[in-house]
Formats: sequence, structure tokens, C-alpha cells
Amino acid sequence: VQIGRPEEKLHASLADITRLLQKHAVLETFTHRQDSSRRDLLEHLQHQQNLVELHARCRSLHPADLAYVLESLPRDDRALVWSQTPAALKGPVLVEVADAVRDRLVDETPRGELLDALRPLDAEDLAYLEGKVPPDLWNSVSRARDAGEQTFLRETMALPDDSVGHVMSPDVKTVREGLSAGAALAELRSSEAIPAHTDQLFVVDGRRVLRGAIRLADLVRADATVPIESLMTTNLVGFAPSDAVDEAIRAFERYDLISAAVVDERGRLIGRVTFDVILEVARASADRSALERAGLSGDEDLFAPILDSARNRWPWLALNLLTAFVASRVIGAFEGTITQLVALATLMPIVASIGGNTGNQTIALVIRGLALDQFPHDAPRHLMRKELLVAALNGALWGSVVGLFALIIYRSAPLGLVMLAAVFLNLVVAAVAGVVVPLTLRRLGRDPAQGASVVLTFVTDSMGFLLFLGLARLFLI
Amino acid sequence: VQIGRPEEKLHASLADITRLLQKHAVLETFTHRQDSSRRDLLEHLQHQQNLVELHARCRSLHPADLAYVLESLPRDDRALVWSQTPAALKGPVLVEVADAVRDRLVDETPRGELLDALRPLDAEDLAYLEGKVPPDLWNSVSRARDAGEQTFLRETMALPDDSVGHVMSPDVKTVREGLSAGAALAELRSSEAIPAHTDQLFVVDGRRVLRGAIRLADLVRADATVPIESLMTTNLVGFAPSDAVDEAIRAFERYDLISAAVVDERGRLIGRVTFDVILEVARASADRSALERAGLSGDEDLFAPILDSARNRWPWLALNLLTAFVASRVIGAFEGTITQLVALATLMPIVASIGGNTGNQTIALVIRGLALDQFPHDAPRHLMRKELLVAALNGALWGSVVGLFALIIYRSAPLGLVMLAAVFLNLVVAAVAGVVVPLTLRRLGRDPAQGASVVLTFVTDSMGFLLFLGLARLFLI
Repeated sequence: VQIGRPEEKLHASLADITRLLQKHAVLETFTHRQDSSRRDLLEHLQHQQNLVELHARCRSLHPADLAYVLESLPRDDRALVWSQTPAALKGPVLVEVADAVRDRLVDETPRGELLDALRPLDAEDLAYLEGKVPPDLWNSVSRARDAGEQTFLRETMALPDDSVGHVMSPDVKTVREGLSAGAALAELRSSEAIPAHTDQLFVVDGRRVLRGAIRLADLVRADATVPIESLMTTNLVGFAPSDAVDEAIRAFERYDLISAAVVDERGRLIGRVTFDVILEVARASADRSALERAGLSGDEDLFAPILDSARNRWPWLALNLLTAFVASRVIGAFEGTITQLVALATLMPIVASIGGNTGNQTIALVIRGLALDQFPHDAPRHLMRKELLVAALNGALWGSVVGLFALIIYRSAPLGLVMLAAVFLNLVVAAVAGVVVPLTLRRLGRDPAQGASVVLTFVTDSMGFLLFLGLARLFLI
Repeated sequence: VQIGRPEEKLHASLADITRLLQKHAVLETFTHRQDSSRRDLLEHLQHQQNLVELHARCRSLHPADLAYVLESLPRDDRALVWSQTPAALKGPVLVEVADAVRDRLVDETPRGELLDALRPLDAEDLAYLEGKVPPDLWNSVSRARDAGEQTFLRETMALPDDSVGHVMSPDVKTVREGLSAGAALAELRSSEAIPAHTDQLFVVDGRRVLRGAIRLADLVRADATVPIESLMTTNLVGFAPSDAVDEAIRAFERYDLISAAVVDERGRLIGRVTFDVILEVARASADRSALERAGLSGDEDLFAPILDSARNRWPWLALNLLTAFVASRVIGAFEGTITQLVALATLMPIVASIGGNTGNQTIALVIRGLALDQFPHDAPRHLMRKELLVAALNGALWGSVVGLFALIIYRSAPLGLVMLAAVFLNLVVAAVAGVVVPLTLRRLGRDPAQGASVVLTFVTDSMGFLLFLGLARLFLI
């Protein structure tokens, strides 16, 4: 029995493949340096032997592991490994691999090979790859499916990307109501293979209307004569194809589901969602949102060309510069004041910085509350009151610390008081913005995590400079 | 059959309970306003009836849903609902509820009730609550367990919190090698109930050494006379109790596992990990890390008292202020220069801001690479080269934009050139810091997501001011 710590095994595979690739590179250089007419047969054979080894190594890997290996390799090595990947594995690897890497692999694969890779995939994997492979190839593969799968694919494609229908599978085990446990079990034994992640069988009536579900483990242990109705649960978590996949993610996490039914508007079972797809969608969306929060649009291949990587960061930098220019013009309006009291220039970044930080704390709480669905009713009002009070308390406390700092450095009590007032007010501004900005983005149907921080920093920077320099002009000059 | 969209049901339950709580509050006020000797019997009965309804509503909820309801209610309402929660549900709810809310609930529950809540929990739930309920209560409950569970609890507690052993369950179905499929199935039918999330049975020898695993679905469909050895897979994902739980999370996601074996150093099966616990740990750690990234230490109850909430944010604000003070002193060193050219004060925040933004983009990529285990070998060197090139490219481009802005506003080419040079250099500094800081934090055994951003902003702010003002003093004054 082979029980390996999975990551040790995986790193060992990557090291193996890297070693084979290095050997390959050495052999390549060597063969090219020699005059081709004198090319040694032995070296040529070594070269071939090396590729055979590489091929064998790839064949033994789980598709997810092979995807990992491909993502971890520079572009040339990646192309070589891909060319040595057995045809049967290419489809599953395309499903598993990161978006940015998939695009390149698809570009590098001849059309015929791509067709061979897509043909054996099951319907939901094929649905997943729609829009990620050339449309004509996808269409020709999907048209070759049987009528049921074609209908499934057509209906799935008609639904939005973030709907349950888009991630469901038509492959679901059912039993007819009215059977005994023994008869249901006998039917199961004589039917086709049970799909992966089948923890429960769905009980349906003659028109395929969902009646309940029975755990496979319960069916196995039940007395053969017992009617399945007495074993089944009728309190089910189920979804409509048009339900939001985010809602399914929360339900799977909350109730530890392995599978859940998908029913049409008449209550007929049309498929199921399984936890592996849900987990994958949740992971991908968390990953995307973490990158987007830093202003990286979508996926970035670790080995992308420099210009692509640089360009990936432009929209965010442009937006950031725009807000920085505006904040800078706010300061520009007070240049006269700064000339009279240069200490203002030294102290103003502190006011802006502490505002940005407290505002981002509020944003983190609001975004988390939205993700956990903590504001079903009027909690935002409660939240706003609380954040304002926290801001006032922290403003008084840390405003005093900052004011004291100014007092000590510049020996000016009025300057200290202006500093205290500016910090206090900017924290209040930050609290309001920290609550309002993400909630507004959400109401506009956008990801609140994505733009909230840049808008907030814009508000706290500009207002921080304005409050501090404005108060200074009023009271110090 | 009840197939509800889960969140609709949940929101309906919360609305129901809120309505009952409001009725309760109205009745309370009414009863108190009246002279107690004239208190109407009818109202008293209504009051009682209301509580009975609340009790019934709570009883019908899934523990995870009840935890959600408790988290969504202000403190007084929460205490009332908790008092009406059936004793049998209190244990599971304590397992599900957020840390900050659990602490309050534990404080408010009489010791006897808490004992009753803990006693029926299974061993891994009890292990999970260690350190989260008063130690003497926990000890007295664990000492009442049978010898096997006591050993399990003792061994689990001896392992670090972030190890597989800490989240494993001793509750695992095995079959002895050498049996036929029919005999194994018969044994399964006569044994105790099959634990939840059992997708596979583990095959062990006489000394409980793990030999392989067999899918429940395959066992059900197998011919009765076939030996189980021919059905089982011997290529298993398995863990040692001391393995890092992060590694288990990645393996569960990569291979879509429902359960995995845990074996001791001699290969003996000692338990299993299931996906529900793995999912919960992954979710909690992602949640914690999102909050910590904004400097919120640990969990914050939405309805915590203001002072607690304010205090939760102090360490981060203190750290932030410290770095802001240092950056401010950098500017302070150039006050003479600023007095001569006040435009510098206006422009310097732009240099600092764009450095912070590009650095945070790099950090997001590095942290993601670490989370996806993308740097098993020497990728950081590759990454550093790439980030430096991207920074140089972006520095030249956006530095020119910024320089042009300065040129247009202040009609000074030298000022524009200084601006360009400062932005270019600060982006290079940001790229280096963006790669080095998270990798160093990781090497020090800390969460790279937590402190990276504050250190980076400190570097890019201070260096941004220093580079810009320093170059200005050298070339403009």
C-alpha cells in the first residue's frame, strides 16, 4: 500500500520532471553544437529515452497534479511537458489548470489533438470549458453528444455563469418511490456505475418529481423488506438552476453537504450539484477577489511575458494615480499656508494615513458581514452607529497621541490641537466611508472587496489633507 | 417533500424569531408599566405562549442555522433565544458559533447546563471545544469518556492546533483484509451505524495496519464472492497526525476528497479526517486572515460593546502610527528644502502612493503563490527578476505620466525629471520589498498576509519621501 504525504509525492514528481527537462536541454545543446552529419546515434537514442521517461512520468500523475506541474514550469518547459502529456489526460488537465495557463496551452495544441482531448470529457466538464476553448471546436464536440446531454449543455449555457445551473451535473442516481429497500439495492447493483461523490440517492415519482433522498449508507444497512419511504428524508436542501452559486456555496458550508438536488419549477429532478465543484468555484472566486483587491485584473501566469504582466497592472495604477493627483491638488490649494508653516507638510501624511487604516478596518468588517450574510435586515444602521462611536473613541485617543507628538516636536500647543481635531474628524469620515462605500458597491451589483479600498483611500487622503490644512489656515496662520 | 432554497428558509426563521422577540419586548414593557397586583392573567399567559413558540422555533432549526441566528441578534435578544434553546442543541450550537459569540454564550450559561451541553458531543467536537469552555468543565466531561476516547483526546490535545491530528476523528469504518465483498457487506450491515461522510471503508490487517480503501459504492455493486483486495485501491492519500492541516486542505481541494486516512508511524490506521472539518478549518483561517490583514486581531462580534471593538483595533493603529511618525520625520529632515520649493509638499504624496500600490500588487501575487505552493524550488529568484523588470517598465511609463503632470502644473522640466526619477526608483524599491517582505515573514513562521502590507507601506512611504525630497535637494535647490 502506498500512503504518501500528498505534497511530498507532488514535489518529488515536479523535481523528477525538472530533472528530465534539464537533461533534455543538455542533450539539445549538445546535439546542436555538433555537425548534424556527425550526430552520434547514441546521443539521439539517449534523447529519445529521456522523452519516453518524461512521457511515462506524466502518465502516472493525477490531472490536478499535472496541472500544478505545468503551472510551475517556465513556458518552454511547459510546452515540452504538454507535448508529452498522454492524450487521455489532456482534457482533464485543461479543466484543472489555471485560466492564464490554459489559454497558452490551448493556443499551442493542434486542433485535432484538442478535439481528442475534449471528446471524452463528461457533460459538466465540457460545459465548464465553454468560452475557454475555440467556439467552433466546442460546438462540434457538443453536437456529437446524445440528445439528453445536448439539451443539458444548451440549457446550462443559457444560464448566467454564477448560477447553480452552470455548475450542476445531469449525472444523478435515482430510485422510484414505492420500492422496497431490497429492490432499490438490487436495481442499484444492476445499473450503470455510480457516479463519484454519490452519498445519497434521490427518490422520484413516475414523472421524476423529487420526493426525498436516502443515504447510500442507510440503504445498505436497511432491512430488505422496508419501503424506502420510511428510510428517506423529505427535508432537503435543493436549488433551482437559476439560483446564485454563492448561495449554494454558503449552504454547502453550513450543512456540510456532499451533494444537493437541482429541481425545475415543477419540482422535477434535473440534476445535482456536488461539493467538489462548489469547492472549486469558491476557491477560484476567493482567489480572484484577493488578486482584484490589489488591482490585478484576473489571473496572472507566473511565467507570463513582462509586458503582459506590466499591462495587467495598468488600470489599477491609472486609477490610483488619478486619485493621488486629486489629493495632491487639495494640498496645492494650501501651498501658501504650508510656506508659512512648513511643519504642516511634515505632519499631514500622518492624518491621511491613520484615516486610511481605520477605514480599511471598517471595510474588512463590512465585507465579511456581507460574505457571511450577516445583514439580512437593518443591521447596517446598527453597524454605522457602532463604527461612528468606535471612530470617535479612537479619534479622541489616537488624536491625542498624535497631537502630543506634534506638541513635543514643534513646541506648539495650537498645532497639537489642530492635529487632534483633524485626526478625530478624519476617523469619523473614514468610518462613514468604510460602511457606505462597500454597501453601495454591493447595491450596484459589484464585488465590494474590489473597489472599496481605493475609493476609501481617496476619501481619507483628500479629506485628511483638507481637514488638517483647512483647520491650520483657520486657526494657526 | 420540503425543498426550500436554504437561505430563504433561514431568513424566514430569523424574521420569525425577531417577530417573537419584538412581541416579547412589547409584552415585557406592558407588564412592567402596570401595577403588579393588577397584572392581567391573560397577558401573563400570552407572554408564556410567546416563549413556548420561541422555544419551538429554536428546536426546529439546524444547529448551524441557530448559530447564525444568535450571531445576527443584539446581546439581550441573543441571551433570550439562548435561554430558549433546547439543551440537546446547545452543544452543537457551541461548536458552530463564531468565537466571539461563543465566549459570551459560555459566560451566560449556568455550569450545570454547560455540562449537559458538552456531555453528548462526540469526541472530535469535544476536542474542538478544548480551551473554549472552562477547563475544569471540559476535564470533567472528558474524564467521563471511555478509555479509547480518553486516549484520543489526550493525544489530540498534545498535538499543535494546526496539525491533522487536531482535526481528525477516531470514528472510522474498517474491514479486515481477506474477506469477500459479501462478507464485508454483511459485517457492515450488522455493525453499528455508519458515521456521516463515509464514502470509503478502510481495509486493515490483524494489527490494524492500513492496506487500502474501498468505495462504499463499489462494495455495494460488487459480486458477493469477489475478495475485497480486488476492489480496493492501494494508492491512498494519507496523513500522519503531526502533518500540517494546511497540507491536508490543499490535498482535499486538489483531489476532491471526502475522507482521508490518518496513520501512525507504523502504518496503523488511527482515524480519519473528513471534508466537513477541513472546509470549516479552511473557511475559518481565510476569514481570520482577511480580518488580520486589516489589522483586526481575531474575531469581532457584530454586537460587541464599543470599547471592546475599539480596543480590537489598537495594536494595528499603534503600529501604523509608529511607521507614519518615522515617515513624517523623513519629511521633517527636508523642511528647509520644502520651504524653498513648496511644490515638493504637494507632489510627494503621489510618489509614496504609487509605490505603495505597486508593492501591494506584488505582495498579492507572492502571497497567492505561497498559498498555492507555487514556489517549491527556486521560483522566487525568477519572480524577483520578473517583478523588477515589470517595475522598471511601469516606473518608466507612469513616472513619465507623473513627471508630465508636474511639468504642466509647475512649468518646470527639472521638477518633472526629479519626479520621474523618484517614481521609477520607488517602484523598484516596492518590487524588492513586495517580494522580500512576505517571503521573510513566511520564513519566520508568520502569516505573510498579516504584516506584509504594513511593512511594505512603511518602506514605500519613507523611501518615496526620501528619494523625492533627496533628489530635489540635490538637483533643484
